[in-house]
Amino acid sequence: MQLGLIGLGRMGGNMRDRLRAAGHDVVGYDPRPEVTDVESLEALAGALTAPRVVWVMVPSGEPTRSTIRALAEVLDPGDLVIDGGNSRYTDDRPNAELLGEHGIGFLDVGVSGGIWGKENGYGLMVGGSAENVERAMPIFDALRPEGPREEGFAHAGPVGAGHYSKMVHNGVEYGLMQAYAEGFELLSASDLVTNVPSVLQAWSRGTVVRSWLLDLLVLALKDDPTLARLDDYVDDSGEGRWTLEEAITHAVPLPVIAAALFARFASRQDSSPAMRAVAALRQQFGGHAVKQAAGPSGTPGEIAGPSSGTGSTQG
Amino acid sequence: MQLGLIGLGRMGGNMRDRLRAAGHDVVGYDPRPEVTDVESLEALAGALTAPRVVWVMVPSGEPTRSTIRALAEVLDPGDLVIDGGNSRYTDDRPNAELLGEHGIGFLDVGVSGGIWGKENGYGLMVGGSAENVERAMPIFDALRPEGPREEGFAHAGPVGAGHYSKMVHNGVEYGLMQAYAEGFELLSASDLVTNVPSVLQAWSRGTVVRSWLLDLLVLALKDDPTLARLDDYVDDSGEGRWTLEEAITHAVPLPVIAAALFARFASRQDSSPAMRAVAALRQQFGGHAVKQAAGPSGTPGEIAGPSSGTGSTQG
Amino acid sequence: MQLGLIGLGRMGGNMRDRLRAAGHDVVGYDPRPEVTDVESLEALAGALTAPRVVWVMVPSGEPTRSTIRALAEVLDPGDLVIDGGNSRYTDDRPNAELLGEHGIGFLDVGVSGGIWGKENGYGLMVGGSAENVERAMPIFDALRPEGPREEGFAHAGPVGAGHYSKMVHNGVEYGLMQAYAEGFELLSASDLVTNVPSVLQAWSRGTVVRSWLLDLLVLALKDDPTLARLDDYVDDSGEGRWTLEEAITHAVPLPVIAAALFARFASRQDSSPAMRAVAALRQQFGGHAVKQAAGPSGTPGEIAGPSSGTGSTQG
Amino acid sequence: MQLGLIGLGRMGGNMRDRLRAAGHDVVGYDPRPEVTDVESLEALAGALTAPRVVWVMVPSGEPTRSTIRALAEVLDPGDLVIDGGNSRYTDDRPNAELLGEHGIGFLDVGVSGGIWGKENGYGLMVGGSAENVERAMPIFDALRPEGPREEGFAHAGPVGAGHYSKMVHNGVEYGLMQAYAEGFELLSASDLVTNVPSVLQAWSRGTVVRSWLLDLLVLALKDDPTLARLDDYVDDSGEGRWTLEEAITHAVPLPVIAAALFARFASRQDSSPAMRAVAALRQQFGGHAVKQAAGPSGTPGEIAGPSSGTGSTQG
Repeated sequence: MQLGLIGLGRMGGNMRDRLRAAGHDVVGYDPRPEVTDVESLEALAGALTAPRVVWVMVPSGEPTRSTIRALAEVLDPGDLVIDGGNSRYTDDRPNAELLGEHGIGFLDVGVSGGIWGKENGYGLMVGGSAENVERAMPIFDALRPEGPREEGFAHAGPVGAGHYSKMVHNGVEYGLMQAYAEGFELLSASDLVTNVPSVLQAWSRGTVVRSWLLDLLVLALKDDPTLARLDDYVDDSGEGRWTLEEAITHAVPLPVIAAALFARFASRQDSSPAMRAVAALRQQFGGHAVKQAAGPSGTPGEIAGPSSGTGSTQG
Repeated sequence: MQLGLIGLGRMGGNMRDRLRAAGHDVVGYDPRPEVTDVESLEALAGALTAPRVVWVMVPSGEPTRSTIRALAEVLDPGDLVIDGGNSRYTDDRPNAELLGEHGIGFLDVGVSGGIWGKENGYGLMVGGSAENVERAMPIFDALRPEGPREEGFAHAGPVGAGHYSKMVHNGVEYGLMQAYAEGFELLSASDLVTNVPSVLQAWSRGTVVRSWLLDLLVLALKDDPTLARLDDYVDDSGEGRWTLEEAITHAVPLPVIAAALFARFASRQDSSPAMRAVAALRQQFGGHAVKQAAGPSGTPGEIAGPSSGTGSTQG
Repeated sequence: MQLGLIGLGRMGGNMRDRLRAAGHDVVGYDPRPEVTDVESLEALAGALTAPRVVWVMVPSGEPTRSTIRALAEVLDPGDLVIDGGNSRYTDDRPNAELLGEHGIGFLDVGVSGGIWGKENGYGLMVGGSAENVERAMPIFDALRPEGPREEGFAHAGPVGAGHYSKMVHNGVEYGLMQAYAEGFELLSASDLVTNVPSVLQAWSRGTVVRSWLLDLLVLALKDDPTLARLDDYVDDSGEGRWTLEEAITHAVPLPVIAAALFARFASRQDSSPAMRAVAALRQQFGGHAVKQAAGPSGTPGEIAGPSSGTGSTQG
Repeated sequence: MQLGLIGLGRMGGNMRDRLRAAGHDVVGYDPRPEVTDVESLEALAGALTAPRVVWVMVPSGEPTRSTIRALAEVLDPGDLVIDGGNSRYTDDRPNAELLGEHGIGFLDVGVSGGIWGKENGYGLMVGGSAENVERAMPIFDALRPEGPREEGFAHAGPVGAGHYSKMVHNGVEYGLMQAYAEGFELLSASDLVTNVPSVLQAWSRGTVVRSWLLDLLVLALKDDPTLARLDDYVDDSGEGRWTLEEAITHAVPLPVIAAALFARFASRQDSSPAMRAVAALRQQFGGHAVKQAAGPSGTPGEIAGPSSGTGSTQG
């Protein structure tokens, strides 16, 4: 079928390729002239036969919202807009209502699979009406992995349910990644385990912990067996935070997902104010030695604190 | 090749089947007459041609240690004992030394795969000398999953490294399980997601979080879509605790794995003394209402606390 | 000085007493006839000499917001409204702006001290202009504890800073309470410590952990040495959640405060969906025994799972 | 009364001063000639009148154990040894038994108060027989703070109970410190709160969170309002680890204390292997930009990763 696709970055570009390979007629729009098929959203609308289906694949937040607003102007009643980006689910209903005022339908789709999806297919979680879902099903079937439809696709519920499901998916992802990472670190801390990458690779088949994320970690270790070439700075792209905020709203305890998120926050701090406060307290009550902050020259801080003699020091 | 196998419970029994299906000559021993092939450890030794290889698959701790001690008596120099149970890695060197005094070799093997291993094969992590590993390789090859050897088997290091790797594997497993579980709970808490099992199933292919554990959760939800038939009581079998203790020794932060372990501890408490203490504190400083413990009749506790009128109450 | 005081519940009523004892002229309003001094907000305004100072001490959220709206109508330019309730700090600027449109000033005050504040005084954190703070200082001085002003009072910053500080105060409070509670539980778990209340009481002076919260726990244990009469159900009144949400916004890791909040969430669950999911997974991969949920008769659930024989079971 | 005191470091030296000020006859021994009263343990025994009471105040572990062994040789039946150091409670029974073979009594005492104890007195938790406790009571009364005995002293139980109580005390201390530290960080992250030290100082009286640790934090902030002069490196002296290990043994969930301990572990890492693994995973599945580790020249790492164009990137 015919599809308009807005946003031809890493995800959107790959999706265009996968859809075309499946025989669909994709007209892509992107502000970058070297990748776009048409020059403007108006041109996109013009290139599609009504009733149109347009998939939006741009960064979440204002970029997506402004794209939706623009589409409300250039599309016609009976058209259908699909937001496949990582929008916060709370954006979905307002977007749907805005489009609805113009007689345009809306679906929200959580898309997982990263840069591998082009080849493997993407897991899809969809929110919206059954009618709209049915209408876009050929596109979903082309994007999702081969195999039974229900193993890579779900109609999760009404508008918002797709992005809600993707949000939780990403929260779970944070926890899984941190679990493997902690295991990697503990294996690496042992003198007994002489070949950490081989142990992780041996988990690839048959074990309880086998997974695609594990496969990726094994892949990363092939190039860099201790990951020494990487910095320990880890960004977060929002969904983990939203997951935690949602859990707070529903009074759901998420100790693992929260711990994974906090580990990322901490990884980005050059100096933790909290840990400076703990150091200050130890110094105050126990005369425990503390490190002075490094000077501007980058020389390591010295240890300050009374000499301890024979006696024990205790809190 | 010929193998003696001690312990024919769920794991050992399945392994005997898998090894025999691969053409190996397995003589099994178990105290239960209905499953054993021989009547005693002595009979097992007698039934095997020296130099023997004997795999021990009994509960960890004293059962394994006493089996090893008994084998030291009935086996001969040049024989090889493999501990494939869930022993703590700190048991391995003493066991190896005891056997070594009798000229008997030792390997420790972490085995993962649960009841599915009979069909899928087991992931294996082995500790010991290269020579002994080589000697038992036909057994390992039969037990591990099909595919490249290194994807289901690793020689992790010297004696102890196999069980160390398995310990960390199980710690990671705790974290992974808890991550999915938290996701399940948050999905279930939402009004938007109308079909939680279908969302989890849609994660099965293409997504970043796809894994075998996820497949199992999908399977469990087929029968019982809200898991309402299960109690929320979760046992732990030791490796998670050992993992955390090991992390403490090495000063490795394991926030996710620890949180997963604590969630299990908490799941088994009828009443948490800690939370009673928090309730007591709130009552003390704020006059906040608290619940009285249920009486012996099982009637729910009443709310105690001053009536609040219009005014706010605050800490 | 003269003060109007709205909300005469546990907090407001005590504050009226403390202020009157300090010689201030307090006119209180509360919808409950048995405690109020005047019959309506209009009557309150009429009873006060302009320029008036009116302290609002009602539950946070809509009750406070609607009181502020009503005051905007009955007060006059030059009057000053103080919100001393537990409002979320994000309410403060809108409230200040609404009042500002009527020429009425605004201060937000975080008040800590609970039911003990009447006697001990209240810790106060204030947000707003220096001029307004100065104007209300006689009230603050009467409410705060004796001793140096800066040890029970701070002008924390512009409008919002008072409630922000109180929010963080309460987040810290959650962490402190949970820390003591965990210590109480671990002491109680030991066979060695034969008198847990006496140990906690011995922490009251000289130790690093001495605090007012500890004193309260000692007090609670006097009546009920194991806290057996309390249920382990712990409510939360919002500030802990806001603290965590604020941390998410600022990418500040709060592992301890989050853990304390989650412990409360978990304490209120009859059955944890997450832990049912973990139980389900263990049953799936390992054939581990699980408990069936209790039937409606309240009979304890039975253990389900294959019998284990001699062999070990492992993941 | 007369007391031998071994170990005249920060703690022991202060205790000698406090005991002498209370009128006790203290003979101190320390290997450092400039602080010791006698030249050897033999000389210490010779200087005391039997039956002797000897307080050991040296670092825990082997230093304490070897001192106890030496005392078993130089003391006489009927003497009493008190271990006031931070020994792990599991050392106490072996130490008591060793001394008991020589007819020498034993008490274990957890001592809290740090360098402030000289002036304020020390909180004391004691394990051992009632008879021995009674015998040393004049010493305990001189060391503990003024006020009711039970507010700075407890006979916690049999041998081991004193150090067990101190272990838990320190675990709680970790949690309390981290709670304040997190609050400090969140206050510091806000633009609203213009004077963080003043807010913390305002918590000193009247509030729910007032405590001695808070007083110390206020003190530390007087000199260094953002603690910018301190490094965020925080050591741990063992009791927090023991507390967590003990919790694992008893299956007691300690989420807050564990989080506080892990924060310290993490504070000491130059680069977290776990977070490098998370970064590696993000790069693998999403092509997310990561930082390369800094080169030996100390230049900050560059960002690596595909350029992102317009399109969203997602997991």
